[in-house]
Order: sequence, then C-alpha cells, then structure tokens
Amino acid sequence: MRDLIITNALVLAADAAGTVIADGAVAVAGGRIERVGPAAAIGREAREVVDARGMLLMPGLVNMHCHAGDSLFRGLVEDLPLEPWLQKVWQAEGAILDRETVRLGATLGLAELLLGGVTTALDMFWYPEETVAAARDLGMRVATGGIFFDGRGMDRVAGAARLAEAAAFFDAFAGADDVFAGCLPHGAYTVGPESLKAAKAAADARGGFFSIHAAETRAERLDIEGRYGRSVIRHLDALGVLDANTILAHCVWLDDEEIEILARTGATVAHNPVSNLKLASGFARVPDMLAAGVRVTLGTDGAISGNDLDLWMALRLAATLHRGATLDARAVTTAQALAMVTREAAAGLGAADRLGSLEPGKLADMILVDLRRPHAVPLFDAATHAVFSTAKSDVRHVFVGGRQVVRDGALMFHDLDATLDRVTALVPRIAASVQA
Amino acid sequence: MRDLIITNALVLAADAAGTVIADGAVAVAGGRIERVGPAAAIGREAREVVDARGMLLMPGLVNMHCHAGDSLFRGLVEDLPLEPWLQKVWQAEGAILDRETVRLGATLGLAELLLGGVTTALDMFWYPEETVAAARDLGMRVATGGIFFDGRGMDRVAGAARLAEAAAFFDAFAGADDVFAGCLPHGAYTVGPESLKAAKAAADARGGFFSIHAAETRAERLDIEGRYGRSVIRHLDALGVLDANTILAHCVWLDDEEIEILARTGATVAHNPVSNLKLASGFARVPDMLAAGVRVTLGTDGAISGNDLDLWMALRLAATLHRGATLDARAVTTAQALAMVTREAAAGLGAADRLGSLEPGKLADMILVDLRRPHAVPLFDAATHAVFSTAKSDVRHVFVGGRQVVRDGALMFHDLDATLDRVTALVPRIAASVQA
Repeated sequence: MRDLIITNALVLAADAAGTVIADGAVAVAGGRIERVGPAAAIGREAREVVDARGMLLMPGLVNMHCHAGDSLFRGLVEDLPLEPWLQKVWQAEGAILDRETVRLGATLGLAELLLGGVTTALDMFWYPEETVAAARDLGMRVATGGIFFDGRGMDRVAGAARLAEAAAFFDAFAGADDVFAGCLPHGAYTVGPESLKAAKAAADARGGFFSIHAAETRAERLDIEGRYGRSVIRHLDALGVLDANTILAHCVWLDDEEIEILARTGATVAHNPVSNLKLASGFARVPDMLAAGVRVTLGTDGAISGNDLDLWMALRLAATLHRGATLDARAVTTAQALAMVTREAAAGLGAADRLGSLEPGKLADMILVDLRRPHAVPLFDAATHAVFSTAKSDVRHVFVGGRQVVRDGALMFHDLDATLDRVTALVPRIAASVQA
Repeated sequence: MRDLIITNALVLAADAAGTVIADGAVAVAGGRIERVGPAAAIGREAREVVDARGMLLMPGLVNMHCHAGDSLFRGLVEDLPLEPWLQKVWQAEGAILDRETVRLGATLGLAELLLGGVTTALDMFWYPEETVAAARDLGMRVATGGIFFDGRGMDRVAGAARLAEAAAFFDAFAGADDVFAGCLPHGAYTVGPESLKAAKAAADARGGFFSIHAAETRAERLDIEGRYGRSVIRHLDALGVLDANTILAHCVWLDDEEIEILARTGATVAHNPVSNLKLASGFARVPDMLAAGVRVTLGTDGAISGNDLDLWMALRLAATLHRGATLDARAVTTAQALAMVTREAAAGLGAADRLGSLEPGKLADMILVDLRRPHAVPLFDAATHAVFSTAKSDVRHVFVGGRQVVRDGALMFHDLDATLDRVTALVPRIAASVQA
C-alpha cells in the first residue's frame, strides 16, 4: 500500500527531460517517490490521497546559500556596501547572538523558507546545531556544519577550537537523512590558508561538503590579491580546496581564467542576485559560467542583506538580470534557471540521486503551488510559470520525504505566531546593539 | 461624523517629511483624508472603525506604466528581445482582441494590481474605455485614453480616426475623479511626427496627460536616429511634446544631454525594471536621472513582458538594481524608491494635491499591509520594510476614496474566479494564435 498519492496536478518534474504532465500524479512509498505519471494510470490507492486540481506539483526548492539566523537583523543595517555593512552586522551579532537567539533566528528564517517551498537549505551560521534543531522542529532538511573563522567568532569559540567543533558536528549528524554535514569557512579574508586546508581535509575525511563565501566584492578581490598575490579563486585552487564537493557563494568578481578553474574543478557556484544587488556587490557572470560548464545554483543569502529569504525572487532575477546585463534575451534560459533551484542544487550537494526532481527513487520533497491566482492565469508552459510568475506566497502545501509540513500556507509543526512575538520582543535590544 | 477611522496601525505617510507614526490612525470624511495622527489623538468616532493592529497603513501605490489587457498573453511569447517579441505579440493581439476580450484581460490585470495594493494605474491599451469599465467594476482609479498608432491598430481603427477616438474618450471621462484622461501614442517608431504633435495638442487642449514608450531599446534608438537624424528624446523634444504633463515609459537608452532635456522639460519617466530585464532592453540610468532632477516613477509594464504585474517587485528592483549596476550602495535610496510609487507618481499624473501620500485633504486611497508574516519581523523602519520586504501578497485591505475594495486579500466587487475561468477557457485559442 502506498503512503500518499498526489493527483490531478500539473506536474513539473524538473527532470533533465523537461517532463510536464497536464493531469498528473505522484505516488509515494516509504518517503520516496515510487511513480510519476498520468493521474489515470496511477490511480488513487494509497493511505492518503491529495487532490491537487488547480495546483502545480514540483520538487521542493533547494536554497544553496543562506544565514537563516540573521533574520533577527532584517532591515537593521541599510544603504551600505558590504565591508562597512559587515562591521555593523558583526557588532549586532556580537551583542545579540547566543544559542537561544540563534535558535530563534534560525526558526524564523527557516520558517520563511519552508513556507515558500524551500525544502532543503544550505545554511552558514554560528551554532549550526541550533539551526539543525530549528529545521527538525519545522520538518525540513538542512545542510550545515562547523563554521571556520580565525580569531574569536560570535559564538565565542576561538579559531583553534574550530576543528574540534566541526568534528563534533559530523559525529552528531553524519548519516542523518535530513542533515547534510559539511565544513563552512567564512571567507578567504577571514580564514587563513592553513585553516582552509584543514577545514577541507576535515570535510573530505567525513564525506562532507565544503562551502565558503568567495569573490563577492571588488574589495575582497583586492584584499586577497594584496595578501596572497593571487585572486580569490586562484588562491582557493592553489590551496586545493576546489572540487565537486565545494560550494562557493557569490563568485561575482571572476576573470575568464577563474571561470575556467571553476569548470575544471567541478566546484558549484551559489549565485545570490538579491543580495549582490542590495549590497552593490555587482553582477555575477552567470551566462559566462554556464557557457563554460560551471554548475550554477541559487541562494537567498541572509535577510540582513536581502531583507527576506525569497528564493523565487532569486530565481526570477537569475533568469532576467543577466538578460538585462548582456542585452541577450537568452542569456539564461528558463530551463537553466529552473535547474539552478532543483537539479543543479541537488548535484551540488552530492544528492543528485535523492533530491532535485520528481523521479522514482528520489526523496518525496514536493510542493504544491496554487494556480488559482490572477498572476497564474493564463498558463501556457509550466516551467515559464514557475520561473517568471510564481511568488513564494503561492506555495500552499509542502511535503518533505512524503510527510506534509505545510498545509494551506501554514506550518504544521510549529507555532509561527509565538516565534514572531519572541522576535518582536527582542527588537529594542537589537536596535540598541548598533547604536554608538 | 467621520465615515471611517483606521486605527492602531504603523502609519507610513509617504509624505515629503517622511512621517511614520508607530501607533497611528487616519480619519476619513467624504472620501478624503481628514486627519493623520496618533491613534489616541484621533479616537474612534466614525461610522466605521478598522482596527489595524499588526498592519502597516500607507497610501495606495500608483503604477505609471502598464497594459493590463495583455495579461491574456502572459507567458505566451518567451525568450525573445523586444523587436521580434513585439511582432509575435501583435500577431496574438490581432487574432484575439476585441472589446470583450480586452475587457476580460483588463479585468484580470487590474484585479492583480488592485489585490497588490495598486489603487491607480496608468494603462495603455486598445479600447481604453473597456479598461475604464473594468477599473470601475473593481473600484480603482485608472489613467488612460486614446491610443495613437499609425496604420491600422488591433482595434481595427485606422490612424486617421485616432484623434476623433481620443476626443470621444475625453468627452466621456474628463472630469471624473476616478479617471485621468490623456493621449497615449504607442512610440516614436510607430507614430509619425505629425500624429505625435496632434496627440499632444489634443491632450493639452483638454488638460490631459500624454504618455508614450520612449528609448526602450538600442534598436529603437538606432531606428529613430536613422529616420529623423536625432535620438528619441531629442526627437520628442524637437516636436514639442515634452513637458510636465508628459510621461515617458522606459527611457533606457539615454545620453547625458537627453537626461538634461528630461530635467529641463519636467517630463516624467516611468521606469520598468522587470520588463527591461526580461526583454534584455538594458538598465535605465536611474541614478543619473535622479541626480539631474528628473522625476522618476515606476511601472510594471504588461504581463506579456514581465509575466506578472507586481509593482512591489519593480519597487524593490528600482532600489537595488542600480546599486548593483553602479557599485554604489546609495545609488537609489530607500526614500527615493518609495517616492517613485507614491508622491512622484502622483505628481507625474498632475495629482500631487490628491494622491501619493497620507495627508489631510488628499483622496483616501490607502492600503493595509499585514506585518504578521515571517519576512515582516523584526521591523526597524517602516519605509525599509515597504521597499525591501513587502510582497504583493501581504496586502490585506485596500481602500479607494475611503471605500473598501479589497478585504482580507479578496476583491469585494468582482468575482475573480469567474474571470479566471473565462481566461482559462480562452487558452487554446490564444495558444493557436501564435502558431505558424
């Protein structure tokens, strides 16, 4: 007996073949997709049947770069470029963050993501085990792990103790199917070469991913060139930390040869257009990266830079921004953009066999998007609708491993109102943290 | 006795002084704002009292460029630059549009706008009186009027009959407080110099606005230079059609002197970042225009180019895109962006005394934005929230002239489901219109 059948949906499988089924269904057993096909062929024999008429069924989205916990600081530091902005951010983080507030902030940020149809988020933040706890409360998957940061971090851990922290994270979570464990150094300008190599070795030893901010701003590029006599990507390549298990956030400031290095090493790029615009970082060379065969995925970045965690907006910008920048209406195609939040992201996490499309054998991470909205009618092509018209508020139901975690736009396992109240109560303290 | 008091709101007046009232209220009498102030000072004596706790109260937004009717063709013509795209669009419009389908498309597009908090829309489309009828059914304001287009238009009217059509529109609607009447030539590449001058004279004679697409693409610029030996803005200036009653959509391809011409003449620019990106038209030089003193406002353009009519997305892009393009985190400030959809737009319509802010004497066009959303917490600054975090789906209640037209996210005077069904029934015919 199947556990779940979702039927009568417009199915956008987001697979390599571009499968769309007008009156389709997905059958789920044991948390995995058993079959995808026409509703009539799949029938209705299951413990639970969801009639999805008027809805689009597609895989849950994968957010490849965020800092959910810093949702506590949304809108606090405005109208500054990255470097002075980061000084203020760290001032606020230093004053406010502890295990409890990180858990609260992570809950707020991940709740926003999950309600918007993101079922897996790669998160970089202090106290990563608190982010895991928040994700588990909500019922979503998270990719995170030990942070690396030379000197003392906002979690009061000294640089020298980072490796032990990262190992403890692997011990706690490696092998869990809802957690992807890795090592996450902050950046080449905050983490020295030896620590970067050690972090990568620790990740490799445990089969984990490695993720770092890289080439986000011109100032960072100049900084790293000044320190090491080579640009950011060359520096990381020389240290041997670039391979198919590495995820680089941003990659705005690249020359042609660095794009070739990314292609050659198989490193994944997490493009964050919302934050790159807001912080005046610039435009990543996404069309050139795609042409070179670099794996490009998408992130929201944190709410303190982007003001919200809207992966649909990132998706739409990924599909349009580069058309404007290159004056080429096919600079990034609809299919390429859709893959960035589905298949390519899954592959970047080393989970191409489990996530990223609706195909038999994959984990049943699925979302239902309401098509009874004025901006969803008419609908000629499902992928076009997903990339260019869908808003996060259109996501009505979310399933993770076949288990429903969002119903009619509401979280099923968490009291969002209580979280909103707790964050609101913190506002005076947070506002005071950046005064003087 | 006052008609309405909205109280206990976070009031963002969007006035020149940047007034924000944490626990504020607005009193309405005779369709106009009588008073704005602290809730305690304004009290609750009115025929209707709306308790807006947990909501942001701000003026209804003004969309300065759209084609609501072409929502019928959303997502139909994809991945093309403007010129070949427009040929396909015209093929579809020619096959599908008549009075009835324009009314249907206008209803769909304007419904999306009104649900998203747009209370006034400047619309350029065939059969403008059908757009007025659709707006009146919904209860919103519209700025539109006679279209000018040399040769035969999609409404089967010949170019020579355009002046009579425009005059009939003025006769029907001039003086109405829910309609701003004007003349709307399509563009300098589709309307010759004499028709442009005649359209402007007709608008001036009736105190109406004049709005035209201008300098949208590089191809248009080259075309006009080839025909007339001068660039688009110089051409329009030489014809004498630029003044404070003129609204120019797009203005992407401008040189420094053309920006000076816009500043000198007082013409208003309607910037459409969503469509400019999607159609690979380029980036308008918004920071340079602002520095020169040009009035910049925002438009959604039509759903056939932008795929939806989301003025909040246009607002957010206006505030961030140019930061990315100039690498200046203050290229467009939060306050400047907010003014584009409120005060500056009202001034561009010649309605600075009636629209664009919550101030005594103005028409009571107001929206309530839900702040109990994960992306609305915490909130440190009301304008920052409006520009960078608000989504169209956050708009819960909309009032036009003090009359509630949207309640809890639903239209009060129109059956949206019926419209969605009627549009859906047209899909096969519309899809067939662009085949072969």
